[in-house]
Amino acid sequence: MEKLIDFYELTMAYTDFRNNKMDEICYFDVFFRKNLNNGGFNIACGLDDIISYIQQLRFNDNDIDYLRSLNCFDNDFLDYLSSFEFKGDIYAVVDGTPIFPNEPIITVIGNAIETQLIETDILNRFNHGCLIATKTRRIINETKKKLVMEFGARRAQGCDAAIQGAKFAYIAGVAGTSCYEAAKRYGMPIMGTMAHSHILKYHNEYDAFMAYAKVFPDNSIFLVDTVDTLRSGIVNAIKVTNDYLIPNGYRLKGIRLDSGDLAYLSKQARIMLDDAGLTDCMITVSNSLDEKSIKDLLEEKAPIDAFGVGERLITSKDDPVFGGVYKLAAMEINGQLIPKIKMSDTEAKLTNPGYKKVYRFYDRKTNYALGDLIALADEIIPENEYVLFDEIENWKQTRITDYRVEELQTLIFKNGELVYDVPSLNQRRAYCEQQLNTLYPEILRINNAHKYYVDLSLKLLDLKKAMIYLNSHTL
Amino acid sequence: MEKLIDFYELTMAYTDFRNNKMDEICYFDVFFRKNLNNGGFNIACGLDDIISYIQQLRFNDNDIDYLRSLNCFDNDFLDYLSSFEFKGDIYAVVDGTPIFPNEPIITVIGNAIETQLIETDILNRFNHGCLIATKTRRIINETKKKLVMEFGARRAQGCDAAIQGAKFAYIAGVAGTSCYEAAKRYGMPIMGTMAHSHILKYHNEYDAFMAYAKVFPDNSIFLVDTVDTLRSGIVNAIKVTNDYLIPNGYRLKGIRLDSGDLAYLSKQARIMLDDAGLTDCMITVSNSLDEKSIKDLLEEKAPIDAFGVGERLITSKDDPVFGGVYKLAAMEINGQLIPKIKMSDTEAKLTNPGYKKVYRFYDRKTNYALGDLIALADEIIPENEYVLFDEIENWKQTRITDYRVEELQTLIFKNGELVYDVPSLNQRRAYCEQQLNTLYPEILRINNAHKYYVDLSLKLLDLKKAMIYLNSHTL
Repeated sequence: MEKLIDFYELTMAYTDFRNNKMDEICYFDVFFRKNLNNGGFNIACGLDDIISYIQQLRFNDNDIDYLRSLNCFDNDFLDYLSSFEFKGDIYAVVDGTPIFPNEPIITVIGNAIETQLIETDILNRFNHGCLIATKTRRIINETKKKLVMEFGARRAQGCDAAIQGAKFAYIAGVAGTSCYEAAKRYGMPIMGTMAHSHILKYHNEYDAFMAYAKVFPDNSIFLVDTVDTLRSGIVNAIKVTNDYLIPNGYRLKGIRLDSGDLAYLSKQARIMLDDAGLTDCMITVSNSLDEKSIKDLLEEKAPIDAFGVGERLITSKDDPVFGGVYKLAAMEINGQLIPKIKMSDTEAKLTNPGYKKVYRFYDRKTNYALGDLIALADEIIPENEYVLFDEIENWKQTRITDYRVEELQTLIFKNGELVYDVPSLNQRRAYCEQQLNTLYPEILRINNAHKYYVDLSLKLLDLKKAMIYLNSHTL
Repeated sequence: MEKLIDFYELTMAYTDFRNNKMDEICYFDVFFRKNLNNGGFNIACGLDDIISYIQQLRFNDNDIDYLRSLNCFDNDFLDYLSSFEFKGDIYAVVDGTPIFPNEPIITVIGNAIETQLIETDILNRFNHGCLIATKTRRIINETKKKLVMEFGARRAQGCDAAIQGAKFAYIAGVAGTSCYEAAKRYGMPIMGTMAHSHILKYHNEYDAFMAYAKVFPDNSIFLVDTVDTLRSGIVNAIKVTNDYLIPNGYRLKGIRLDSGDLAYLSKQARIMLDDAGLTDCMITVSNSLDEKSIKDLLEEKAPIDAFGVGERLITSKDDPVFGGVYKLAAMEINGQLIPKIKMSDTEAKLTNPGYKKVYRFYDRKTNYALGDLIALADEIIPENEYVLFDEIENWKQTRITDYRVEELQTLIFKNGELVYDVPSLNQRRAYCEQQLNTLYPEILRINNAHKYYVDLSLKLLDLKKAMIYLNSHTL
């Protein structure tokens, strides 16, 4: 198994080991500071691979030999690592859940060494998962329930980015993928028909469509822009349909436009297809699409039935980094819980101290999510009435009643044992869909989205203020 | 092995199989259309993994069972796939070479099926490799030969993006990586010391530095911004140096700044360290750095010795897609070579037809690269005098003499046999450095870079024009 560990995790772990701090219990929070694309929501994803990584993380002889060769660790520490297993607890918000800035999405509780060594792997998979799931959902939300296919493998940042990316996209709502490995491994629908090279390989476009139609009469989606979309592509698609598909009892499933002005071409293509009686022929488009271009196309009433989305989804092109961080929030020393805070010049970068839980309030009547609350773990959340208020803009207060409240994190590992059943991919996809329906449409807007309420409890806010005060007065 | 295949490769291959076209020889070019970041150069990378993928690509029982379950391929085709091996030829520009738009970087020659099935894997690895190597080199070029460390694993788009990304960055010139797996697997220098959590775990910053210094006295780089950089971090770094390191015969290796105004803080830190006699203490900085912020910092004369670069390198944040494509350029049918062209509304998207080679002219005196020439494979390039001229702006002509000319592509596979020895990672890194020195500094500029000459031979241009004419007059 590939170990995603940054070297400083090993040097810090060794320092703790040599200073007899390895049994002190640490509480680490995974959180992020801004919505992807400055949007209104994000989607948690990547937990399944975090789980299998943590279950499998061991240092084998090969690792120990390598570490020994670096000449900076002693034998006691290498012995310790050679019997290393994660024995701590992990709470996490599960895949498919909407998440918001500053919320503890994953909380890792364990000794100083085990909590340190899993940092980079958790962040890598969490950041990648949330990045692709969120970007995908931004796209899906603009497609008015039309079909979206994931076509990005060739432009993904490596093999893993293609395969895992397709999985994250599926959880967030794409109908299927062109990626063989992802479809095979995860049981996702596989999609795709032809490239431009197929057309060029035959004597002419008519022959190329005909050759394909004869082999896949019930799944012919012709790529019509290799020569000239309107003067050649659509004309030949109709000819092959009339010459072969219809006489043999088939229909033309679709055409795909991959260049030019997709609004103009789809409208012209629709007219030509309808005139030929092919009103049921789908128009599929591709070519560097994202949520913005899809929104524009549909606002212009382009008669598009399906979207193939590639590079801009699989790399989240206009915002390709999901900035999840892993910060120490508390330590437990001799049974006492000691909150920790990371200071910063900017208020936004101050961390929230202490062992925390995050709660979501839902309107009992509409089932819409009203807001989230970050509180210390030992707080009891009132069940009938609560005043949400903004951490920074304190004058903004919202009194809520008639709600139901849910704790967002689920216990995943207890003393190193997995206590969570990872739902199937289709279950996670259905859960994500259901979860997105709890968000007000204003939160889902791609531009100027309404800000979802995420508030700190008074107790947590008081603790934070006191710690800031103490820190700045002890310099 | 993970198979990066897009489903349409299988449907096209099957169509060719059923139409008895599987033995027709195809010539595919891998090329790209624009410089990364609208810069002046790009670096070829990713070839080693393309090679091992192609060597290993087989369809095992598991694959065949999966393909059969899709109910769209017949048994003859599945039998064909079950004994599939790539038996064609591949030419490629090797890792570390500067490359430019529209040049055939990789040429794949083989039957219709084998050339189709490797498309996505080649593109994925080529695009990822060139993306990270090029972005890294843009950064390296601005650092005035100071140390650059790759710290991006946690923000990479998946595990592979972290590990392969670190490798590509090393080829392009970083000094080492924080990524354990990359360092171990590829023998790269491993780097890193401490995170903010290390400081928070101890009673105070002084104790945290002291604990680390005692364990790593010869490799202490203290992270000084956890509490307050100038009022606490540097002060405690100097105290621990005077209290422990110096009395025990060690020096403070460095400090790391990870927030705030890095120009201001590095200048103040330098003064404080120098005043304490620590003139040899390195100042390392990190925090969302890229070529632009590094250029600004050094223009402001920030006394920085080393840069830790993370998310903006490992995702190429401001241009995260390298748009390599795989296009049919020619076919060989009954021994006759037939050039192919993909038409398009935009001249830039027309492909260059035919089986081609690419040549680089070097000035014999200075060893600077003068320009590249794309020619048909059977052309002979004059050795003494040549007129380079721009394909579109035909009036721009440059007569060159006293040059040496080199063919850029190397034969990698011949009839499916690997005939190329992949150089070691350090050899590729040294080769990349040497290659970059052949480019005029004007080409390397991050803004408004001079455009490197890439011209088409007259013979190729005539062929292209004739094919465009024919295509547009046969509609």
